Amino acid sequence: MTVDYTVDFQPLGRRVQVADGSTLLEAARKAGVGLNAVCGGAGVCGTCRVRVMEGMVSPPNKSEANFLDQSEIDDGYRLACQVEVGGDVLVDVPPESITAPQRAQIEGRERAVEIDPTVRSFDLHPTPPGLHDLRSDEKRLLEALREEHNLTGVRFDPVVLAHIPAQLRENDWEIRLFIRDNNGCPSVIGAASVGTHPLGLAVDIGTTKVAAYLVDLETGQTLGASGEMNPQIAFGEDVMARIAYAMDGEGHTEELQEAIVKGLDDRVRELCETCDRDRDEVLEAVLVGNTCMHHLVMGLPVDQLGVAPYVPALSASCDIKARDIGLEIAPGAYVHLLPNIAGFVGADHVSMVMASGLHETDQVTLGLDIGTNTEVSLAAAGRLLSCSTASGPAFEGAHIRDGMRAAPGAIEWIKMVDGGVEYQTIDDAPPVGICGSGILDAVAELRRIGVLQENGSMRRDSHPQVRQGGDRPEFVLVGRGEDGALNDIVINRKDVSEIQLAKGAIRAGVEVLLDEAGVDLDDVERVVVAGAFGTYLDVRSARAIGMFPPLPLDRFDQVGNAAGIGAKLALLSRRCRHVAEEIAGRVEYVELTTDGRFSNAYMEAMALPDPADVDV
Amino acid sequence: MTVDYTVDFQPLGRRVQVADGSTLLEAARKAGVGLNAVCGGAGVCGTCRVRVMEGMVSPPNKSEANFLDQSEIDDGYRLACQVEVGGDVLVDVPPESITAPQRAQIEGRERAVEIDPTVRSFDLHPTPPGLHDLRSDEKRLLEALREEHNLTGVRFDPVVLAHIPAQLRENDWEIRLFIRDNNGCPSVIGAASVGTHPLGLAVDIGTTKVAAYLVDLETGQTLGASGEMNPQIAFGEDVMARIAYAMDGEGHTEELQEAIVKGLDDRVRELCETCDRDRDEVLEAVLVGNTCMHHLVMGLPVDQLGVAPYVPALSASCDIKARDIGLEIAPGAYVHLLPNIAGFVGADHVSMVMASGLHETDQVTLGLDIGTNTEVSLAAAGRLLSCSTASGPAFEGAHIRDGMRAAPGAIEWIKMVDGGVEYQTIDDAPPVGICGSGILDAVAELRRIGVLQENGSMRRDSHPQVRQGGDRPEFVLVGRGEDGALNDIVINRKDVSEIQLAKGAIRAGVEVLLDEAGVDLDDVERVVVAGAFGTYLDVRSARAIGMFPPLPLDRFDQVGNAAGIGAKLALLSRRCRHVAEEIAGRVEYVELTTDGRFSNAYMEAMALPDPADVDV
Repeated sequence: MTVDYTVDFQPLGRRVQVADGSTLLEAARKAGVGLNAVCGGAGVCGTCRVRVMEGMVSPPNKSEANFLDQSEIDDGYRLACQVEVGGDVLVDVPPESITAPQRAQIEGRERAVEIDPTVRSFDLHPTPPGLHDLRSDEKRLLEALREEHNLTGVRFDPVVLAHIPAQLRENDWEIRLFIRDNNGCPSVIGAASVGTHPLGLAVDIGTTKVAAYLVDLETGQTLGASGEMNPQIAFGEDVMARIAYAMDGEGHTEELQEAIVKGLDDRVRELCETCDRDRDEVLEAVLVGNTCMHHLVMGLPVDQLGVAPYVPALSASCDIKARDIGLEIAPGAYVHLLPNIAGFVGADHVSMVMASGLHETDQVTLGLDIGTNTEVSLAAAGRLLSCSTASGPAFEGAHIRDGMRAAPGAIEWIKMVDGGVEYQTIDDAPPVGICGSGILDAVAELRRIGVLQENGSMRRDSHPQVRQGGDRPEFVLVGRGEDGALNDIVINRKDVSEIQLAKGAIRAGVEVLLDEAGVDLDDVERVVVAGAFGTYLDVRSARAIGMFPPLPLDRFDQVGNAAGIGAKLALLSRRCRHVAEEIAGRVEYVELTTDGRFSNAYMEAMALPDPADVDV
Repeated sequence: MTVDYTVDFQPLGRRVQVADGSTLLEAARKAGVGLNAVCGGAGVCGTCRVRVMEGMVSPPNKSEANFLDQSEIDDGYRLACQVEVGGDVLVDVPPESITAPQRAQIEGRERAVEIDPTVRSFDLHPTPPGLHDLRSDEKRLLEALREEHNLTGVRFDPVVLAHIPAQLRENDWEIRLFIRDNNGCPSVIGAASVGTHPLGLAVDIGTTKVAAYLVDLETGQTLGASGEMNPQIAFGEDVMARIAYAMDGEGHTEELQEAIVKGLDDRVRELCETCDRDRDEVLEAVLVGNTCMHHLVMGLPVDQLGVAPYVPALSASCDIKARDIGLEIAPGAYVHLLPNIAGFVGADHVSMVMASGLHETDQVTLGLDIGTNTEVSLAAAGRLLSCSTASGPAFEGAHIRDGMRAAPGAIEWIKMVDGGVEYQTIDDAPPVGICGSGILDAVAELRRIGVLQENGSMRRDSHPQVRQGGDRPEFVLVGRGEDGALNDIVINRKDVSEIQLAKGAIRAGVEVLLDEAGVDLDDVERVVVAGAFGTYLDVRSARAIGMFPPLPLDRFDQVGNAAGIGAKLALLSRRCRHVAEEIAGRVEYVELTTDGRFSNAYMEAMALPDPADVDV
């Protein structure tokens, strides 16, 4: 009898069953994970590097020793083609080992803003020192600032000063200083040759994804954007899992901080290489994230976010030197973090509200920022209400039998026609799994054609593609061999339940906020749908399964990564930072965990609506 | 024929000749270096650990492998008893391997000061959070500061905030915050349990010695003092040698910074252990040093200090986070550096002027801060003039045949009587060499009894203890075997020349300043003699050899380590920091290297005065 083990490929989110003794490369192929393997698995090219995080595998062999040094082997790095599984295994696949990258999902609707960043450039031409002019370099530059720009009261970041004497002398006593208006205590935070534009970095740190933008602080132009997984995924899929890990041992909080900072460093390096710029030219960063991500990147403890009453260590906006969190941009650069609202409504939500204009609209507007945590807000009659719901990672493909993230080969769109299934995969690659938007479509369509009942159970014999899966029926979306699929791709009862839980939480949050504000659903004039997943989902499907309320389609507005756009606004405009403060101060936070209305609404919202009631 | 090699023991400054194949332990014994060797050299106790910095020695053996791990062996660590020399060798002796420590020379005349430090303590008792009070910890504390102490406008150092949530919860919502008045922008830089006094660290970073003081910032009490060698000595004996090293290669400046910061860290650890306090309770440090030491500890480049016109990168006073230089005290602590005056008149001189009251005296006062660099200043008619002379390390025993630092066994006092030599060694240990004060005495006495001529040459047959040494006569102070001496201890012509060069430079500086101010020598009412060496020298001898001007003895005032005392004043009093600024702004710096008067005065000042002219 052969034993089967599960191999879980992260951060792609693909799980696969393989027989005892299979190699990780075989498992990756079976799972549709596009692992590099230039030599075809002979162990002679070294391109299929992966990291074994957990589980029983064969020991490293000589082929691997040719490509990996001892410290890498100690860290779990292996060549996938040489590793045989002997138990359930968790594998981390580094981006460089994957043939096709996953979809970035970093676009968002831009807003015009008057460019007025915290960092400004000043060109100086001081007279060189001589036997009768022994002023220090610092004094010489401060006096030149006064003479050439009428600027006084400036101080040097002492760490930045270390680079300036050589720069002055190499550039013949011409220099551009970058001065940051630190709440009226201006400070020299960088220097470069005359003409160099300062750069800024805006980052939306999601629980699952990190979206980063490199911006020219003088023109406001976005020079590049980069989206990748949050490397903290290795420590837990959602916020509560990360908090549990942080609380679980000495040094774990630091480990989580290092993971995300390394992730940010990688983004900066990638963006700077693409744009042919130097990371020392990045003079300001704005980070937004939920309160947990905010705390972890700053190195703040999250223990108190894990127990009632879920109080943040810090809610005010904050400036911290990039070097104090280990972020390798300009040595004098600051990182600005927008304010948090509560333990589970963070700076990313403030940023999304600002970018989508919820704080200044006269229309009754619902805002949904859909992610592993979904924040819901309601602007109505001058009030701004917000809450947070734990929608979980199902929309990222996690906990779904054939779920996967939005990478090539993921089924992203589904329609049931004439007794069959039409679908589309990302990049038209052979189908390997289903991503979030595909799962939503599948549930909506299966309900429409009567395969799913109101409570989410699947009717036997309701469709030729329903088959018995274990003790319950399941629906085969794509059969093995069809369009090059290596396996059956299936939706089962448990998958539907996961979606019901996730969508029910979001809808219940909407209902509580409407009740709290005393607003009728019909009075909602606009629904802003933000977040990476929110960009790609089909609003029709989301409405059909009851995740979105039954409002006319033209009231929905998919704005993309609004949190990331808000971070860019705060990077370019000091006024926007004040606006963010105002928003954080104005928002009325509604705590759902202790709200009786929420549990009732949740129970109701889990049902799949009657298709007849959906069309508006 | 046996070959002899030189073994140079640092930081003690003892050199010794030994035969090829001798062990380092044998060399240490011959040199009078009190190396631990509990097992007597059998290689079984591991107490004679030293570090071979340079030179040919036998490879590590099995006995050593029992006590040293591979990384230590890679760093040059060895057991002295097992290492045979095969060439000239430079050995670093760690403090823990020495039986008797060297004399600290850290005392100084204290001045009373009103205690008003930059860091103050505030005890808080905030109400704990609850379901209806979800304020963040930071906001809760800021509001408690306002309610309990009427203090507003305070910000948290974000790095410090990381430790606070746990402290608050462990101490039942009682906490003491340490708040620093950052030029009117108060910042929380630390926290502790209620009642904990904040500590401060004052350090005088000399080219050769580091003197550190641990101070209670509430009572002003000095809790402990520690003096040790500046670990940068391994990279060069004087300022110019360090600058040359820094300029000589990529990363050298950083290497010098790391060396001194590690030295400071060692001092802090030692002081905190002695006083049973935690280094996290050290919330402010004041460092003073010459401009080169100042730049190196801050990580500023010193290249421009090595070439005319010798311009500092920074002369203004400066606050830098301890963590930005890698100093391991409280995570939020600042390091304050007093202002520099010029490339070779640094913050230590400002500190010495302040501590000895030169800036506020009505008397015509000369100030001498004697070290490897000697700063000279003159207060006269409301003016304050300063210059710097390169007196070199001869007073520390360097470049003197049998010179050594002020450690046990060093001859520190000498008198010629009845055709013989009376002397005294430190700790009355058997004589092993001569330290600075002994060398001064020797030259003065040899001149007095007619052994030395005006130009410093030694008269043959002038004394029974004069013998032929190479091609020139030399004077045997102590013969081998006398009082347990392991070797002859000798003064030769070259030693006398070294002292002539050093003392001539100091005296010439005095003459130029008097000329610049238009003051007659006889009008000088007081001569302040500061510095470690200045504490121990015999003013009579210094005057006899012409290093000090021929003024009545009662006008001389040996004040000890005034620079260190000044650093303590600046630690305890914000007003003193302002005074230091005023001093730095007022001092008229006289550059000697381009001053014709100096070279003339130098030539004259090198002569040894006629003993008949000396008594005043």
